[in-house]
Amino acid sequence: MRYLPGKAQQLPGNRSQLGGYQASHFLFEVSGRVATLTLNRPERKNPLTFESYAELRDLFRALAYAEDIKAIVITGAGDNFCSGGDVHDIIGPLTELDMPGLLAFTRMTGDLVKAMRACPQPVIAAVDGVCAGAGAILSLAADLRYGTARSKTAFLFTRVGLAGCDMGACALLPRVIGQGRAAELLYTGRSMTGTEAERWGYFNSLHEPQALLAAAQAMAQGLADGPTFAHGMTKKMLQQEWNMGVDEAIEAEAQAQAICMATNDFHRAYHAFVAKQRPAFEGD
Amino acid sequence: MRYLPGKAQQLPGNRSQLGGYQASHFLFEVSGRVATLTLNRPERKNPLTFESYAELRDLFRALAYAEDIKAIVITGAGDNFCSGGDVHDIIGPLTELDMPGLLAFTRMTGDLVKAMRACPQPVIAAVDGVCAGAGAILSLAADLRYGTARSKTAFLFTRVGLAGCDMGACALLPRVIGQGRAAELLYTGRSMTGTEAERWGYFNSLHEPQALLAAAQAMAQGLADGPTFAHGMTKKMLQQEWNMGVDEAIEAEAQAQAICMATNDFHRAYHAFVAKQRPAFEGD
Amino acid sequence: MRYLPGKAQQLPGNRSQLGGYQASHFLFEVSGRVATLTLNRPERKNPLTFESYAELRDLFRALAYAEDIKAIVITGAGDNFCSGGDVHDIIGPLTELDMPGLLAFTRMTGDLVKAMRACPQPVIAAVDGVCAGAGAILSLAADLRYGTARSKTAFLFTRVGLAGCDMGACALLPRVIGQGRAAELLYTGRSMTGTEAERWGYFNSLHEPQALLAAAQAMAQGLADGPTFAHGMTKKMLQQEWNMGVDEAIEAEAQAQAICMATNDFHRAYHAFVAKQRPAFEGD
Repeated sequence: MRYLPGKAQQLPGNRSQLGGYQASHFLFEVSGRVATLTLNRPERKNPLTFESYAELRDLFRALAYAEDIKAIVITGAGDNFCSGGDVHDIIGPLTELDMPGLLAFTRMTGDLVKAMRACPQPVIAAVDGVCAGAGAILSLAADLRYGTARSKTAFLFTRVGLAGCDMGACALLPRVIGQGRAAELLYTGRSMTGTEAERWGYFNSLHEPQALLAAAQAMAQGLADGPTFAHGMTKKMLQQEWNMGVDEAIEAEAQAQAICMATNDFHRAYHAFVAKQRPAFEGD
Repeated sequence: MRYLPGKAQQLPGNRSQLGGYQASHFLFEVSGRVATLTLNRPERKNPLTFESYAELRDLFRALAYAEDIKAIVITGAGDNFCSGGDVHDIIGPLTELDMPGLLAFTRMTGDLVKAMRACPQPVIAAVDGVCAGAGAILSLAADLRYGTARSKTAFLFTRVGLAGCDMGACALLPRVIGQGRAAELLYTGRSMTGTEAERWGYFNSLHEPQALLAAAQAMAQGLADGPTFAHGMTKKMLQQEWNMGVDEAIEAEAQAQAICMATNDFHRAYHAFVAKQRPAFEGD
Repeated sequence: MRYLPGKAQQLPGNRSQLGGYQASHFLFEVSGRVATLTLNRPERKNPLTFESYAELRDLFRALAYAEDIKAIVITGAGDNFCSGGDVHDIIGPLTELDMPGLLAFTRMTGDLVKAMRACPQPVIAAVDGVCAGAGAILSLAADLRYGTARSKTAFLFTRVGLAGCDMGACALLPRVIGQGRAAELLYTGRSMTGTEAERWGYFNSLHEPQALLAAAQAMAQGLADGPTFAHGMTKKMLQQEWNMGVDEAIEAEAQAQAICMATNDFHRAYHAFVAKQRPAFEGD
């Protein structure tokens, strides 16, 4: 067993703990190694504000270095996921901005998606009720999506006079549900029903509303109990190979998987198999 | 409200009207801001000829500058969409061409698809009956597709000894219906039924034959009544981000959406919302 | 008819025959121009070994030059497709390798996928029973996939502490079944049922176990009887256009299809059509 460098090296500045993080603009709760992030303005269907965008961006950036959290559930309070950018808090002020100000805003929202996709933890969206605009993008930026039949996911930028190209939607949505279905949703802004979302591959599965969060957290727990270093590599390569040629992707995976074969978790799995036991993965 | 430069600037050479266009090789009718293009040789199931290819290419190129048309429906007369390149009018002459001549032909047909995807208007294909060969490509090159259960869409190039790589099919079809299903259709040339097409995401919806055209035109009308500058940006970015990485796509969308936030339609939508009215979009 | 250079040129070193090939680590049988490759250690559910990987890689590389074989079926003996890399024969030794050794292994397995996708013959996987790990990748690397309802396809690398990025999975699987469904299978390693596989576009069709191989061979025979030079071009372009922009793909297809229009098979198809006969394709 050649690869057992002992306990994980504590690289200066490269590790942190987020277990005690007190969020200002949403709820952030950690149970074991699973974090649940709850958008929490239920009386307004959990809209986003300039402040919550920024805190979400900063939190997901910090998660890239957090060693105590291995999977993330993102959800909304009170039977809705997220109504997107608030008309009064966001749309109004945007109409007053000059071009550098507008670009600073669209880049900030895009940076949130970049951060969600750059952190090594799988992100699981638990979607009930309204999931609209930037809220729909949050679910799209997740790795997995659990939904309810009554949920309504709407990329409704067109309704406020904007384009469907918001925070990466024209890149991400076609790869999830296909180019034709994505085009319809982005051009019209119409709601995708929960049933459509499951049929089209947007939701990985449908759940009863009262069972939704628990199902997403159980999936997150299962992933957190797995080989989390390898999960982070899976997430990285799904992103990295997005626009590679097939042969280049195969070489990239040869390197990435060779790295994973040098982890202790790979050795643990083998020895557990030989001993007819379940492996206890530790993420190193 | 900073962005209201008054009426749209008339840039020399950059605007045109196509409302009165008299097509030679198909029907071209404009109602309001919606154009309906009907392939119209129903006795032969609406085949394409060298001349109709060229006129279609030129028309879609002109549509890039047409300010009076905001959405396009493409359909066929007499219960069929299009039977593709006519065997006598096209295939026969092709067997007599030298290599520069062959390449000139395949580039012309490809230029039609490039033009359909480069014009800012969403293109909606209304597909009934036979939709074969280059006709299938016309439907594939559209942004949205409405079909009937009895329609038969066949990428049948293999039947005439050719490859499935025609006019962009090997790039476009896998992104619409998935790589495995696309491979089957392209290798075998078999017909995709209307039911399969809807199930696989090729058709956005199925309609009764007698209601098909009206449904496509209603969708086109709805889009034409929307923020058409933003629609054109959605179309552009769906194309532009085709082979970008995710992070590059997100930056591209930050720029594209900031542009849309500087349009009057965005301001109109906000003020209409505040006034509890429906916005009246004008496309600038 | 300008393109009839007589019989196919025998370029030195560029053609070979594989009809008499005696495989050491699997069965390789040729009937007409269709080869059937059967993984054949049914008592262990047909696992792969270092030796069978290497022989598969070398065989698919040789198939690129084999003029007597025009389509390939890959299947497994005894009601299972393939259980992947054997834990004792492969996983154990891997835990003893240094980094250059690990990379040599992951590159060898990747080279098998590259070879499967580089040979001009369409590859049809006939999948029953267990289809796991590297076995699942073999089916994924095929052009078409036929399955059974009882089959279980599992990208279970996570179960041995590894990442989902193995042999190109993070590039290939999302394009076949969509990004969200692929992520779930790669993160969790869970089995995809036959019904899911058909619904999601992984299997082109489901068959009864006793009819599966014959169905795959019938499809292979149909393709082998078609314009096989053009089929090879279809396969090449599906690969080549993977990460091209749409306009670049259209130009690439203009060139590729012009080449196909200079083949005899294109002329044969036209003349057969005029004579109201079925064309007899010869692959040149």
